[in-house]
Amino acid sequence: MSKTVVLVYSGGLDTSVCIPMMREDYGFDHVVTVTVDVGLPAAEIKQAEEKAKMLGTEHYTIDARQEFVDEYIFPAIKANGDYQGYPISTSIARPLISLKAVEIAKKVKGDAFCHGCTGKGNDQFRIEFVMRALMPDMPIIAPMREHTMTRTWEIEYAEKKGIPIGQSKDKIWSIDENLWGRSIEGGHLEEPDYAPPEEIFHWTKNPVDAPNTPTEITLTFDNGVPVALNGQKMNSLDLVLKVHEIAGTNGVGRVDIMEDRIIGLKVRENYECPAARVIIPAHKALEDLVCTAEERAFKMLVDQQWGKLAYEGLWYDPFKDDLEAFINRIQTRVTGDVKLRLFKGSCTVIGRASKYALYNEDLASFDSKTFDQSEAVGIVKTHGMQARMYRTVKD
Amino acid sequence: MSKTVVLVYSGGLDTSVCIPMMREDYGFDHVVTVTVDVGLPAAEIKQAEEKAKMLGTEHYTIDARQEFVDEYIFPAIKANGDYQGYPISTSIARPLISLKAVEIAKKVKGDAFCHGCTGKGNDQFRIEFVMRALMPDMPIIAPMREHTMTRTWEIEYAEKKGIPIGQSKDKIWSIDENLWGRSIEGGHLEEPDYAPPEEIFHWTKNPVDAPNTPTEITLTFDNGVPVALNGQKMNSLDLVLKVHEIAGTNGVGRVDIMEDRIIGLKVRENYECPAARVIIPAHKALEDLVCTAEERAFKMLVDQQWGKLAYEGLWYDPFKDDLEAFINRIQTRVTGDVKLRLFKGSCTVIGRASKYALYNEDLASFDSKTFDQSEAVGIVKTHGMQARMYRTVKD
Amino acid sequence: MSKTVVLVYSGGLDTSVCIPMMREDYGFDHVVTVTVDVGLPAAEIKQAEEKAKMLGTEHYTIDARQEFVDEYIFPAIKANGDYQGYPISTSIARPLISLKAVEIAKKVKGDAFCHGCTGKGNDQFRIEFVMRALMPDMPIIAPMREHTMTRTWEIEYAEKKGIPIGQSKDKIWSIDENLWGRSIEGGHLEEPDYAPPEEIFHWTKNPVDAPNTPTEITLTFDNGVPVALNGQKMNSLDLVLKVHEIAGTNGVGRVDIMEDRIIGLKVRENYECPAARVIIPAHKALEDLVCTAEERAFKMLVDQQWGKLAYEGLWYDPFKDDLEAFINRIQTRVTGDVKLRLFKGSCTVIGRASKYALYNEDLASFDSKTFDQSEAVGIVKTHGMQARMYRTVKD
Amino acid sequence: MSKTVVLVYSGGLDTSVCIPMMREDYGFDHVVTVTVDVGLPAAEIKQAEEKAKMLGTEHYTIDARQEFVDEYIFPAIKANGDYQGYPISTSIARPLISLKAVEIAKKVKGDAFCHGCTGKGNDQFRIEFVMRALMPDMPIIAPMREHTMTRTWEIEYAEKKGIPIGQSKDKIWSIDENLWGRSIEGGHLEEPDYAPPEEIFHWTKNPVDAPNTPTEITLTFDNGVPVALNGQKMNSLDLVLKVHEIAGTNGVGRVDIMEDRIIGLKVRENYECPAARVIIPAHKALEDLVCTAEERAFKMLVDQQWGKLAYEGLWYDPFKDDLEAFINRIQTRVTGDVKLRLFKGSCTVIGRASKYALYNEDLASFDSKTFDQSEAVGIVKTHGMQARMYRTVKD
Repeated sequence: MSKTVVLVYSGGLDTSVCIPMMREDYGFDHVVTVTVDVGLPAAEIKQAEEKAKMLGTEHYTIDARQEFVDEYIFPAIKANGDYQGYPISTSIARPLISLKAVEIAKKVKGDAFCHGCTGKGNDQFRIEFVMRALMPDMPIIAPMREHTMTRTWEIEYAEKKGIPIGQSKDKIWSIDENLWGRSIEGGHLEEPDYAPPEEIFHWTKNPVDAPNTPTEITLTFDNGVPVALNGQKMNSLDLVLKVHEIAGTNGVGRVDIMEDRIIGLKVRENYECPAARVIIPAHKALEDLVCTAEERAFKMLVDQQWGKLAYEGLWYDPFKDDLEAFINRIQTRVTGDVKLRLFKGSCTVIGRASKYALYNEDLASFDSKTFDQSEAVGIVKTHGMQARMYRTVKD
Repeated sequence: MSKTVVLVYSGGLDTSVCIPMMREDYGFDHVVTVTVDVGLPAAEIKQAEEKAKMLGTEHYTIDARQEFVDEYIFPAIKANGDYQGYPISTSIARPLISLKAVEIAKKVKGDAFCHGCTGKGNDQFRIEFVMRALMPDMPIIAPMREHTMTRTWEIEYAEKKGIPIGQSKDKIWSIDENLWGRSIEGGHLEEPDYAPPEEIFHWTKNPVDAPNTPTEITLTFDNGVPVALNGQKMNSLDLVLKVHEIAGTNGVGRVDIMEDRIIGLKVRENYECPAARVIIPAHKALEDLVCTAEERAFKMLVDQQWGKLAYEGLWYDPFKDDLEAFINRIQTRVTGDVKLRLFKGSCTVIGRASKYALYNEDLASFDSKTFDQSEAVGIVKTHGMQARMYRTVKD
Repeated sequence: MSKTVVLVYSGGLDTSVCIPMMREDYGFDHVVTVTVDVGLPAAEIKQAEEKAKMLGTEHYTIDARQEFVDEYIFPAIKANGDYQGYPISTSIARPLISLKAVEIAKKVKGDAFCHGCTGKGNDQFRIEFVMRALMPDMPIIAPMREHTMTRTWEIEYAEKKGIPIGQSKDKIWSIDENLWGRSIEGGHLEEPDYAPPEEIFHWTKNPVDAPNTPTEITLTFDNGVPVALNGQKMNSLDLVLKVHEIAGTNGVGRVDIMEDRIIGLKVRENYECPAARVIIPAHKALEDLVCTAEERAFKMLVDQQWGKLAYEGLWYDPFKDDLEAFINRIQTRVTGDVKLRLFKGSCTVIGRASKYALYNEDLASFDSKTFDQSEAVGIVKTHGMQARMYRTVKD
Repeated sequence: MSKTVVLVYSGGLDTSVCIPMMREDYGFDHVVTVTVDVGLPAAEIKQAEEKAKMLGTEHYTIDARQEFVDEYIFPAIKANGDYQGYPISTSIARPLISLKAVEIAKKVKGDAFCHGCTGKGNDQFRIEFVMRALMPDMPIIAPMREHTMTRTWEIEYAEKKGIPIGQSKDKIWSIDENLWGRSIEGGHLEEPDYAPPEEIFHWTKNPVDAPNTPTEITLTFDNGVPVALNGQKMNSLDLVLKVHEIAGTNGVGRVDIMEDRIIGLKVRENYECPAARVIIPAHKALEDLVCTAEERAFKMLVDQQWGKLAYEGLWYDPFKDDLEAFINRIQTRVTGDVKLRLFKGSCTVIGRASKYALYNEDLASFDSKTFDQSEAVGIVKTHGMQARMYRTVKD
């Protein structure tokens, strides 16, 4: 009986090597390759298609960009999607890629999944969780993890099998890209104290070379998501791409942090997240305008939990649904305009307006008499009362 | 019997007006004025001294700058001292000012305190909490709050009493300054959507006019506090002043947020906090290097609580002691160097090193074999197990 | 022009005294009295009606018991409604009483509210918050607070005005009752170390005198609320009353805690909450069965926040809506049966079952082979990895 | 060269089977067995010694009871040591047992550790974490996990090797005992809805058969730990044993919960924790008396984190040190007396006293005039102000 494996395929060395392996070492007759476009360079998509053709797989390219924006990026915006300073991007693309692989697997009646993740990183968790959640009985093969292959070995193997290697030999950086972010790893980049070379950045101008005059933009939000740029309503995908471009031009979006991976490794990570570094602060600024002080304080905790779940790829966790119920309840008020100034690497909120603003000019202004200031006496007197009682008993 | 009132004195209109009031309306024979230098312009200190002399008070100027750095700013650094995006500064200066007033009150055997805070703001809470905590039975008089005076009335009254008014008449902005920050209020500045005029900023260059080449500095921390700049050991006060200068020159330190005051008013606030906006991110970056993932996540909560207490001026709250016990336990490892790049308004961490770094090159590097990647299988399989069980029962 | 005041009326001394006061000292022509039945003894309702008649007010008695169960107690169950060990009851009845007063005020076109709360307790906050939230411009009069009346003065005044006093003179305890709980205050009861006399308990048998054999019951929950007792579907109000009776008979429901009031006073409180002390643990046990470990841990925080808001009477706070969105999302699974054993003061969960249980017999049982135990090696090896790295660097 | 393995030895079937295995299948010349007494029945200790002798190992019995109380149970009391309703006991004994094995390993210059934990439970994590933390390079062998042995196989193997089996054949329950708690697993006990048979309880009387009159005791705490019972100072170990006895006699200490294991399995667990169920509520009651409201609320979070770490056996995690710094800061005030009533399964706090009590009779009593109640007006007016503003903008 013929057996089929569904391979999550990027066109890169790791996943290309998997193709002959699946046939020769794992005994599959059919290899189905799935490349999901969540905002990849057109050349990469094309390269994947060409390689797949050359290696004789049944290939699927799926344009999931619109779905990625609406169903993954937008929930991340509502949750101010962050993990340890990183505006989560790869993390939320993986579940969608995996979902598409599942859809193809159901269509082609696949017998197993294959992916190219190693046993050190986060992606194995994100990819496999969705596969197991949606097709619990389907075996998952991860050759890179099983055999702990080195790049040298892979290149030799590829050459033997006639797989085009391209610049793989000289490749220093390991890149992952999608609409919402770009991660650059490899070489010395993991070291906390290594200054990353300018060449690793493709999306953001060096702030020094960015325009000498600030760019000011207005983002309009409705129910927690951006719907217009500078007053012009736009399709969600177009809007994200446009903000991406404006931010990158102004050198906005570079992220350099210490990150604790799922498995417990602490590494330095470099990202470019131009759109995220504009839209999320804008979203947060609007929340700060419409939320009570208690809501602001507690949403930090909720967002922190959401960020962790999303980082770990637990896209179908019921806890995520619970947190989103909280988050979405607040978003009904996160409607209004935010003005931002982008300039040589920085993005600053300079104005915010909402019909739901908890700002009352009468109460706030200095000279108002609506609140009788003498009534504050009691409040001040009881302020920290227990702390004062503590002082009387502690000695 | 002669009666003495101790007035927290800035030399400004509000507190100057209090002097004749205390004598004429409140029946005090002696007015003792206390001006605490927590980093004020020399001209202001001098003005306060001259006015005090002219108005015939027993005056004390106290240079508390070193104490402010060591006992107030440094604990704030350890806690990444923040409230809603504001690196707390006025908040932590008030308790020290109040403490000094208490010390003078004990010395002169004062019968009451007087301060110039209104009933709308935060300072009444901060000032009075410390007074009540340290001298529980001492009456506190707040004429601005009792009578809800307008500026117009105050100016008329001052003229009648021969108090020099200076630019008070034309004064638009209400300023508070100390070593760690400068707040600017008044006019339309409270409005969320009003673009603040460039003139309100005194400490930070407009980023557009800041130097065209980045400035890179290295901060050395020991036990959670900065001890050296660019490798040079410095006295704590000098170090803060030097970072203040470098940051301001590079346009770093402007803060523009929506803030929820103690009493529940939501207002827009503008601050300049040049030193804080460099030192705190540096401190945080070092924590991110030496702390476990769980410590990082939980310290966010601890810092949030600390920031709220400090914002509310609850300097002697036992809860603050508890939080600081947690914080200080971590600081024993927050030792090392942080490199930062300051450029036209932004400050970015570009490197960090510590002997306590939880970064292990062997484990982190891609090609290492120390961790057998195939052992990750079990971890990946159990990842999100309950979430997957949930999917099997939920339908 | 005739002026009308709407008085929240219990029929007790405090609020009866308010009636002549409103006419004589506050200049109201009409006094409208509102008594809301949230589970009061029939005699009290009747007494209020008779006194109102005698004192010539326009009186309304409103039976709000069903609404209290469905709209106040049931949300409390979903949130495991607790504040510092106290199953919140008075706290959630006040907003409903206040809501009813608002409804009457709108109907009779009242010009002001009056209530009998003092300035020391919590009820003033709960009652007034709802009034201000729903009728922001309506004045609120609190004579007890304004004049800080003593009981002695009240009794004299009542006698002068011909208000029947009943046992008020000898009354030691201040009682508040509703369907969900009964609070007893007064005398020495606030003291942390005073053993409360048996006479203060009316709803719960002394455990020593309770039946010598345990009573076992089964509660069925649907969507987070109890719908059947011992397999028998019941109306919500009837079910709560029936559990109340069974619990009380078995001596279950006494609560004795240190409580921090809104204003910061710490007092000992005694409550009887028989139904709550059975239904909430049962609800919690069901949540423990259907929730993931992360959901359980985080819901504790959410419930803690909900309990605080409810305790403070902030029934219309948007934060409460947010928390309830989280809570309700979970409740969709809180469906099933809980068996409990009630015996001489204790109530113990002895069994729980739900179609949404995250319990999988295969995985859990000792001898199963579905999970290959050797795959645990990697999990165990990485367990606490950062903690172990910490030990290698700390010395 | 001769090779030595250090076996954590209970004398039970699982670990006895390991002895011949270590020699025959793993190639060790010397087997060193370590039995750590953390409150085991004397018969079990003796049985372990006898079997060890018969099987020819170098055996060590270590009485660690005093250390267990002072260094493990007492910190747990300070943290109100709980995980999901379970007063953690086995969890905190494992690290100590492992520590003792490490000490012996260092003494005998062992080449490897061996333990009898399976790959399903929690103990493998607790035991191995400590071994790896203290002797990072020492191999750890877990035969039960490697081979996923069944009980049937073990019994056959034991018979073949001449290991006495005792009641192992008929053994239904898997028991773990120490001073602080006793866990009973096996058979149907994992099922959420199975009523546990009375026979599984050895330490606690059936409440129905417990004395008909309540027992009242007083516990005196100093710095967060119990130091005297009924006014009599006692050694810590003696005190815990005495409370254990009193509680058990009164049927206090049975715990029946749904527990989420480290690996994600949710199972029902039955415990007997008589001493813990008296001492921890007493400790908590004292904290409630001396802590501010904010401290009480936040300590719940800290305790929750501590409980999770302790449950997972992460005894040397730096995060635990941080949390304990917070906890210990509070304990300096947790000094005083707590009165408790034990009766037929329940334990109730009925009084508490401390010189650090934040209870002030003047402020709390109803008739006092020290706090001018009319000053509460401002507090009440601003209560929930933002929530009220929200209502004005939301429609």
